[in-house]
Amino acid sequence: MEFLGHAVRWPVVGAPMAGGPSTPALTAAVAGGGGFGFLAAGYLSAPMLENQISELRQLTDAPFGVNLFMPQKPEVDQEAVERYLGSLRPVADAVGVEVVARWDDDGWSEKLELLIRDPVPVVSFTFGCPSPDVIRRLQTVGSKTVVTVTTPSEALAAVTAGADAVPAQGIEAGGHQGTFDDSGEPDTGWGLLALVTALRHEVVVPIIAAGGLMTGCDIAAVVCAGAVAGMVGTALLRSPESGAPSVHKSALVDRTFTVTAITRAFSGRRARGLLNDFMRAHRDAPSAYPYINNATRALRRDAVARGDPHGTNLWAGQGFRLAQDRPAAEIVAAIGTEFDARIADFHR
Amino acid sequence: MEFLGHAVRWPVVGAPMAGGPSTPALTAAVAGGGGFGFLAAGYLSAPMLENQISELRQLTDAPFGVNLFMPQKPEVDQEAVERYLGSLRPVADAVGVEVVARWDDDGWSEKLELLIRDPVPVVSFTFGCPSPDVIRRLQTVGSKTVVTVTTPSEALAAVTAGADAVPAQGIEAGGHQGTFDDSGEPDTGWGLLALVTALRHEVVVPIIAAGGLMTGCDIAAVVCAGAVAGMVGTALLRSPESGAPSVHKSALVDRTFTVTAITRAFSGRRARGLLNDFMRAHRDAPSAYPYINNATRALRRDAVARGDPHGTNLWAGQGFRLAQDRPAAEIVAAIGTEFDARIADFHR
Repeated sequence: MEFLGHAVRWPVVGAPMAGGPSTPALTAAVAGGGGFGFLAAGYLSAPMLENQISELRQLTDAPFGVNLFMPQKPEVDQEAVERYLGSLRPVADAVGVEVVARWDDDGWSEKLELLIRDPVPVVSFTFGCPSPDVIRRLQTVGSKTVVTVTTPSEALAAVTAGADAVPAQGIEAGGHQGTFDDSGEPDTGWGLLALVTALRHEVVVPIIAAGGLMTGCDIAAVVCAGAVAGMVGTALLRSPESGAPSVHKSALVDRTFTVTAITRAFSGRRARGLLNDFMRAHRDAPSAYPYINNATRALRRDAVARGDPHGTNLWAGQGFRLAQDRPAAEIVAAIGTEFDARIADFHR
Repeated sequence: MEFLGHAVRWPVVGAPMAGGPSTPALTAAVAGGGGFGFLAAGYLSAPMLENQISELRQLTDAPFGVNLFMPQKPEVDQEAVERYLGSLRPVADAVGVEVVARWDDDGWSEKLELLIRDPVPVVSFTFGCPSPDVIRRLQTVGSKTVVTVTTPSEALAAVTAGADAVPAQGIEAGGHQGTFDDSGEPDTGWGLLALVTALRHEVVVPIIAAGGLMTGCDIAAVVCAGAVAGMVGTALLRSPESGAPSVHKSALVDRTFTVTAITRAFSGRRARGLLNDFMRAHRDAPSAYPYINNATRALRRDAVARGDPHGTNLWAGQGFRLAQDRPAAEIVAAIGTEFDARIADFHR
């Protein structure tokens, strides 16, 4: 079958997972298993991204995508941020790290120019919609452009700006929600299936379903609902190719973690992870990404170094119980094989 | 095909919608269209329910279900309730109605005894799990028992208590979430597809998918994921057989309502409706069902009487944009026909 003009064996896309889990080896393994892989450029400098792209190209000839974080507006409620930082300081003092809220644009221009200079097959965006000009520049150098959306109105904006396809991300998804404006109306997040169906009636570009998908039956379900493919992230987290720290991998099978929840505690942006003590202690984090993400970084690194799953973000989608410790290519091939079988079975 | 031992044409279940929308005519029309219908016993006295059952039996010979609300614990944070009521009183005074928080058990025993005395094919439960004894008594008189669940642990409890099947309700659903304990961890609600997949790996009883389903493709998707049927509620709300007030039906196609949200403002229990001024003004409602539901009743009735969509609950699932003003039997048959076509198409 075909995905954004590229041949793939299964309609299975490996989600970009910034901050460690995505690696060139994981992206290559997804392609090797018959899917389509993404590198996660978020939190990487342009030279680091360039290295990862070069490494990936040495591992595989397969097409791949690169995901960029859109820069966020610097205006946030600074008083709320200070209040929140105040609540973190006792913990930070205890372990001897600093919490400093700082804005950055995630190296947006440098990474964009790199992708213009040295094009990749697909460029995707999260946390907002790039300008029509940016999309056109990437399309001119031969890249397909993909804008992550979480609501029908975001999808309309993405298509209006010229996006070639939209990953529809439901609230089931692990890690950050791609919502354009995190400070919008609360409690309005869409479930994946309803979102795919709504988009199918509102936009004509291909829809890639993302959020909580773990099995071939899940992929069959979203394809049935009208998506061209399903994106898996958490399903790959425990694979040896995943760069998730061991404290994260272990927590996914630790039966004391029973549920995921959405939180702003770690980053100032809604994201889903295993419900842990840090999230319980900091339910009041304001919408202030990337300020809070930068402020908590040292705390999170310290917890990872100490192997403490309750002090760092354990991003996970709702289906995390089904994540397997198995080579990523095997995971993707198993999902694809089950997808085929489900369709055949379904028809009987 | 078969649904809980009864022949149906399509795997489409008409959801019970308490508080007006569900009527004997709607339940009969769902059956007439080839689906399986439910009466909603919530908020009805036992004699009113008896009348509805009798009316339904005059309209159709088809099997049907009756949904009961489980009684809630009377212990709530009374101080928080008083504070919330205080915030409602200026509005109530302005229109000359009283707000009085009152607990009730929704006539639980009387309705249960009615269903033991005069059995119906299926009895379903929402807001908790009945005791194994209650389930056994109903099964002994020939009823299948069905317990609405919103998490894997609730499904395990339902199956342990002896339930014959579980409707899996995702956060996409309109109206009340069936969560056993509304005061549990916030921001942990499951999307439908991830929930169905998780349950398929945890329980062996049939799973009925509920939440945001509007089209035959949606039903095909959840069946693909492992559900035996899909439940539709909002898809039927605008039908002539629906008893939803006209202010509610009109709001579903009013383009000034752009999104649904989950709120406790009307009832003290999480429920999804079109985001309106009442919800925006009362984001702080505590978990205190049915106290707050009883307290806001007069206010809501007054708003309905005045035709004010901003003063009452406009329950709606996330797919509300696709709700059609069309006889309910036609809606169900159209969904069923699309379901068949989707399966055939999917296989090509």
